[in-house]
Amino acid sequence: MTHVLTLNAGSSTLKFGLFERGEEPSLVAVGKVDRIGGAAVLSLKDQASGDKVAKDLPSNQAGTHGGAVRATLDALQSRFPEADIGAVGHRVVHGGLDHADPVVLTDDILDDLRGLVTFAPLHQPHNLAGVSAALAEFPDAVQVACFDTAFHRGQPFESDAFALPRRYYDAGVRRYGFHGLSYAYIASVLKRQWPGLHTGRTVVAHLGNGASMSAIHGGRSVASTMGFTALDGLPMGTRCGQVDPGVLLYMMDQEGLSTQQVTNLLYKGSGLLGLSGISHDMRELLASDDLHAKQAIDYFCARICHETAGLAAAMGGIDALVFTGGIGENAAPIRAQVCNALGWLGLDLDVAANHAAATDISADSSAIRAMVIPTNEELMIARAASALSD
Amino acid sequence: MTHVLTLNAGSSTLKFGLFERGEEPSLVAVGKVDRIGGAAVLSLKDQASGDKVAKDLPSNQAGTHGGAVRATLDALQSRFPEADIGAVGHRVVHGGLDHADPVVLTDDILDDLRGLVTFAPLHQPHNLAGVSAALAEFPDAVQVACFDTAFHRGQPFESDAFALPRRYYDAGVRRYGFHGLSYAYIASVLKRQWPGLHTGRTVVAHLGNGASMSAIHGGRSVASTMGFTALDGLPMGTRCGQVDPGVLLYMMDQEGLSTQQVTNLLYKGSGLLGLSGISHDMRELLASDDLHAKQAIDYFCARICHETAGLAAAMGGIDALVFTGGIGENAAPIRAQVCNALGWLGLDLDVAANHAAATDISADSSAIRAMVIPTNEELMIARAASALSD
Repeated sequence: MTHVLTLNAGSSTLKFGLFERGEEPSLVAVGKVDRIGGAAVLSLKDQASGDKVAKDLPSNQAGTHGGAVRATLDALQSRFPEADIGAVGHRVVHGGLDHADPVVLTDDILDDLRGLVTFAPLHQPHNLAGVSAALAEFPDAVQVACFDTAFHRGQPFESDAFALPRRYYDAGVRRYGFHGLSYAYIASVLKRQWPGLHTGRTVVAHLGNGASMSAIHGGRSVASTMGFTALDGLPMGTRCGQVDPGVLLYMMDQEGLSTQQVTNLLYKGSGLLGLSGISHDMRELLASDDLHAKQAIDYFCARICHETAGLAAAMGGIDALVFTGGIGENAAPIRAQVCNALGWLGLDLDVAANHAAATDISADSSAIRAMVIPTNEELMIARAASALSD
Repeated sequence: MTHVLTLNAGSSTLKFGLFERGEEPSLVAVGKVDRIGGAAVLSLKDQASGDKVAKDLPSNQAGTHGGAVRATLDALQSRFPEADIGAVGHRVVHGGLDHADPVVLTDDILDDLRGLVTFAPLHQPHNLAGVSAALAEFPDAVQVACFDTAFHRGQPFESDAFALPRRYYDAGVRRYGFHGLSYAYIASVLKRQWPGLHTGRTVVAHLGNGASMSAIHGGRSVASTMGFTALDGLPMGTRCGQVDPGVLLYMMDQEGLSTQQVTNLLYKGSGLLGLSGISHDMRELLASDDLHAKQAIDYFCARICHETAGLAAAMGGIDALVFTGGIGENAAPIRAQVCNALGWLGLDLDVAANHAAATDISADSSAIRAMVIPTNEELMIARAASALSD
């Protein structure tokens, strides 16, 4: 048992990582299967050599998550024949109320996780399809579930609840937060490299095609912008973020839309794409000189500023703002626009450091540290899979 | 033409105020008709004498808004026979995109306002029923509409928009804010009595059975917590405030609720009542030693703090926090809990001043003024009715 495999199964994708086991696992290869159910293709990058390979899946593997896992295993075994995969770590979006940590999968836990499909019907079934496939392909490996909700489970009532009848809270209709593997990774980096910030009050902005923010006080999540589903909080590539619940009632009662149509509209046609009418991709919006692209960017940044201050309120202040995720790590103009608008909180941007995507992008004079820390959710899964298969 | 009448028509109520006309109208009498459509009763208070009278409406007046307006006119004419009502000012919840100020009602404008019923189906029809009744009873008076949305109409795009497909913005699905008459009144008080604050950055918390907050910069609304409807933003007596749109999809797709059931649940069974399971009334919650009452209060205060900081972000800081509305004016423990939690922003509460409900409840050392200013929406309507009937 020398290696662990991480799996992140979506509706038509399977992302994977092969790591050498250890207290700090090291990445051997990373890749993904795209277009499961169609013309599926597997791509893989060997970390040591930098070699990249891509391969069409045979028809008997292209149609299902099981086939994708089989193809992944074939590709890894042919390239790394010495690798003995003793544990498989799965990203699972929803752990419900009970899971504040990764867990070794048992039949009972799998049943519980299937019961959470009603909470995350668009994501949980695909994650569990990946689990089922891995159980069939790696019957002797330890299977570990890592939940996007786990890091947030200790939040206080006022961060966790909606102002609905109490029976909803009791039934688990709460703010679960999500992106927890990313936040837990950032917290682990702070703990190791900036222990002073780790014990303090940090707002982390995970800005990718999905986007959320979390208030992390003394290493623990105390509030976050995403709620019960992946729709809430910040606007995203194609998701709406926070929207008046009355808008949904209007769409259904006045426009006659079905819940399925509203679901599609809020998940696939809103956010940066909806506002701009141009693209869900921040790179395209930043490159555009269209007014609607600028408005979408301004909206995105204004919402980040609103939530940075709002999340600071949950901690009684803020010592650091950390940017991560694809946009957070790569879009210097977005970081600049946000940081410049937060000068009133004592944040003073170092323009050159931001342009260079330095780790600390705040000026020496800044009362608040602004930082760029690339996230690594796969490493968090590999750490858990290693630790729980000891 | 010596007097103006203000009318505020709800589903089964009609509030009214009789004012002497003038640049600053003075209140002569205030009252309301309750239980329109049932055992309607009219109550009236004479401001000069302090006398209060109450009277059951005859059956031919009890059933409709028209009857209630007729009964109001009868009561005022018998008590103030010298009053010549030359203008009637109406509170109208929704003015749509076009109205940033009060307006004299014409047939065309009334048609426009009827077209906004789809935006505010629970409020606008009742307001317009009051207008129709007054047109019939006061055919010679100038009729003026004062909109709860008007004060917010100049907000920038990023405050005004939802991250939905652009066609929704163009069609008027925006953040209208509401409680605009209250905010405009507070802004007028600041302008007259604290011109330094008027030109600065103020967050106003209108905390009543309905509750919202607004960022007012240089006398203009730049952001607010209420959105497209009266559901969004802060939790209220029985309304949910901000909630993940995914929760509504869950209620309908997984619980099988109809939009009517969801509407009832979010408008009538949520907020402080839903969270506490005890009462929608803050006075009862403050008097309770039940854990759920305390949690509802903590939730309410935490959301106010979150939004105070978030709205400050829209102004690049905050110079004053103003409390108004029934809870804001009367619930010293709520003000104390909010202000104490905002110490990180430089707010330093004067405990004795807060207990005494002084106008300025912040300590001399406070970097931010905290104030209590009783609102007066009727006076704003009377001012507009006087000015527009000149």
